[in-house]
Amino acid sequence: MEINRSDLSQKFIDLFVGTLKFTEEEFELMLSHFRLELIPRNFFYLKAGNTSKQKAYINKGSTRTFTIDAKGREHILFFSFEDWWIADFESYYTQQPAKQYIQAMEDCELLCISKCDLDKLEDQIPKLKALFEEKKQKMIFATMTNLNEVKSLTPEERYLNLVKKHPHIFQRIPLQYIASYLDIEPPSLSRLRSRLSKK
Amino acid sequence: MEINRSDLSQKFIDLFVGTLKFTEEEFELMLSHFRLELIPRNFFYLKAGNTSKQKAYINKGSTRTFTIDAKGREHILFFSFEDWWIADFESYYTQQPAKQYIQAMEDCELLCISKCDLDKLEDQIPKLKALFEEKKQKMIFATMTNLNEVKSLTPEERYLNLVKKHPHIFQRIPLQYIASYLDIEPPSLSRLRSRLSKK
Repeated sequence: MEINRSDLSQKFIDLFVGTLKFTEEEFELMLSHFRLELIPRNFFYLKAGNTSKQKAYINKGSTRTFTIDAKGREHILFFSFEDWWIADFESYYTQQPAKQYIQAMEDCELLCISKCDLDKLEDQIPKLKALFEEKKQKMIFATMTNLNEVKSLTPEERYLNLVKKHPHIFQRIPLQYIASYLDIEPPSLSRLRSRLSKK
Repeated sequence: MEINRSDLSQKFIDLFVGTLKFTEEEFELMLSHFRLELIPRNFFYLKAGNTSKQKAYINKGSTRTFTIDAKGREHILFFSFEDWWIADFESYYTQQPAKQYIQAMEDCELLCISKCDLDKLEDQIPKLKALFEEKKQKMIFATMTNLNEVKSLTPEERYLNLVKKHPHIFQRIPLQYIASYLDIEPPSLSRLRSRLSKK
């Protein structure tokens, strides 16, 4: 649906007007290509097999990105919160079918822009191109860190990292998803939390 | 050391002269900023704590990129072969100390270019900038695939994927490194190979 200025989170305004110093004209031009999508909790923003034709900025809410293996088991790769951009990025950049599922864990407000519009807009506003080049770099770093953590840390250490990064995660995300992300069973996560809270 | 044209692998020439259609002048200009580094087997190209000040193209040989955790255990993130570019990319782009180690598994010939020179060269030759932007994207896809495989596949499935991608890997890389990459013990890998070879 159409976006009103009052829909925009302060973080979105800070990013473009504050950090990137968009002029009023640039901001207006950019916004004219975005639209607002509301995804209720548990609904899917993207399913594997479909093509990721747009990028979405999380204005409000949180999502989980996961894959499903040949035996039907889910594997959560990461969670996303406000001020993150979501897509199956391989699918987005190659325009091939996605391998990932993106599901809302809370009611989500997403600010979406199509690949076609964003490609054109990046040519018109070089600051926007630079933003997404920087985001690509950050995504490499974050995914490499994630890979290294999965390979080298115990579930307890990964739990502690997660809580440090997102102190309110247990108030927002069902325990079962956090357990799945840590590759442990929900009762083990409950025991872990209870043990660590007594320390 | 200085590079002679005769040092260059056919893949390097194919990439720049063939695929990217560099003119003779562009190719000459680019080469003038590269130098050849020879890293004997088992020696380190980069150690965690140092800063990744250059990118290197593997002209010949192979490397392993790994981290060492607080308990002193190594975790191999990936192997690299001919026609790959190596660096600790987070360190390279941020110029902060590297978290990764890069070690030659075979005698390596690396074509190296400093970040400072490459940044300048990318402005002079836009095709070069486009190449590395595309490489960044591919790195996101590869790291995400790697993460997903670690989370969702059994060691046997990861072994089969590895051999499919690199059929001669066992002729080139010590078994202990492949076992470490698969997060299994070397005797388990030997049993796995022997079992699968009888199928």
